[in-house]
Amino acid sequence: MSTSANSPYHHGNLRQALLEAALIILEKEGEVGLGLRDLARAVGVSAAAPYRHFDSRAALLEALAVTGFQRFSAAMEAVAASNPPDPMAALGKTYVLFALSNANLFRLMFSPQLKKDGRPGLRMAADAAFDTLRHVVGGDMQTGRIKALAAWAKVHGLSILLLDGQIALRAGEDTEALIAEIIGSL
Amino acid sequence: MSTSANSPYHHGNLRQALLEAALIILEKEGEVGLGLRDLARAVGVSAAAPYRHFDSRAALLEALAVTGFQRFSAAMEAVAASNPPDPMAALGKTYVLFALSNANLFRLMFSPQLKKDGRPGLRMAADAAFDTLRHVVGGDMQTGRIKALAAWAKVHGLSILLLDGQIALRAGEDTEALIAEIIGSL
Repeated sequence: MSTSANSPYHHGNLRQALLEAALIILEKEGEVGLGLRDLARAVGVSAAAPYRHFDSRAALLEALAVTGFQRFSAAMEAVAASNPPDPMAALGKTYVLFALSNANLFRLMFSPQLKKDGRPGLRMAADAAFDTLRHVVGGDMQTGRIKALAAWAKVHGLSILLLDGQIALRAGEDTEALIAEIIGSL
Repeated sequence: MSTSANSPYHHGNLRQALLEAALIILEKEGEVGLGLRDLARAVGVSAAAPYRHFDSRAALLEALAVTGFQRFSAAMEAVAASNPPDPMAALGKTYVLFALSNANLFRLMFSPQLKKDGRPGLRMAADAAFDTLRHVVGGDMQTGRIKALAAWAKVHGLSILLLDGQIALRAGEDTEALIAEIIGSL
């Protein structure tokens, strides 16, 4: 497999270039705006070229969600490794700010349409993100799991309520300050 | 305004009958399956009859969401009034179980497509549900609001994660017991 003679991309580069372009289209136009043909046009390759890397639109969406979880995990790992005074609060804030800054990617990562069962790569990437949280929570197997699920529920819920415009901000209220207050309140 | 001569419905009854039928269709087929024509057929009235009560599909969806919030509030008020030993936990469990038992209605109630700004009836119904939570939380204006938002985020997040199939249950694990554990854990 090689890219066409006049393509500026090597095989590995093209996959990465397609993913980067797809992430931009996803945030700008949402999942519906994302087709393999438009993507080829955006990157400047033939309409057939993306199929060398993603055999369907579903495969592209899955690869985007995997990339999303990898970046999400990396952001949380970096915060956890920086020894913040309140690791759970720091992690929670990182979670919600990632969601708000990557709204459509975040929705895709947790889309019920993109079933994680039967997609081992996606399952692994998602589990790795949960494991970061699980590790910071500590505790024994069952207590730690329940605490991590509770923390996850809170930051996921806050992300969704903010993304969906359900929480009415007061006049002049700063979103980031409100997030910190809510996360710190329990 | 009156219903047609051979309709079994009085004006007020028809609205209620349409809403009840719409709630059933919504849970069975999801929001996409819900049109005013299909609804007329399900209730056994002329295709024009629903328009006497809902001038568009959006108006029907709004009325369904309002009904949803009213039932949601009623369920939470009933639990709060029963003086449970841990009111916040009892309310939280009621929230999540309502979401799981009325999945599509719950999604509609919190749909970002159904903007609450500019729909005062929907805004009021949604605010009333939050006020029940706010009342049980207690506290002064700002602390109470933040605590209520945190509690809301947790139970909303848990609902969404369960509805979207993101929380992997262990073999033999009971959903309701897991919900109680997670809600009780903070």
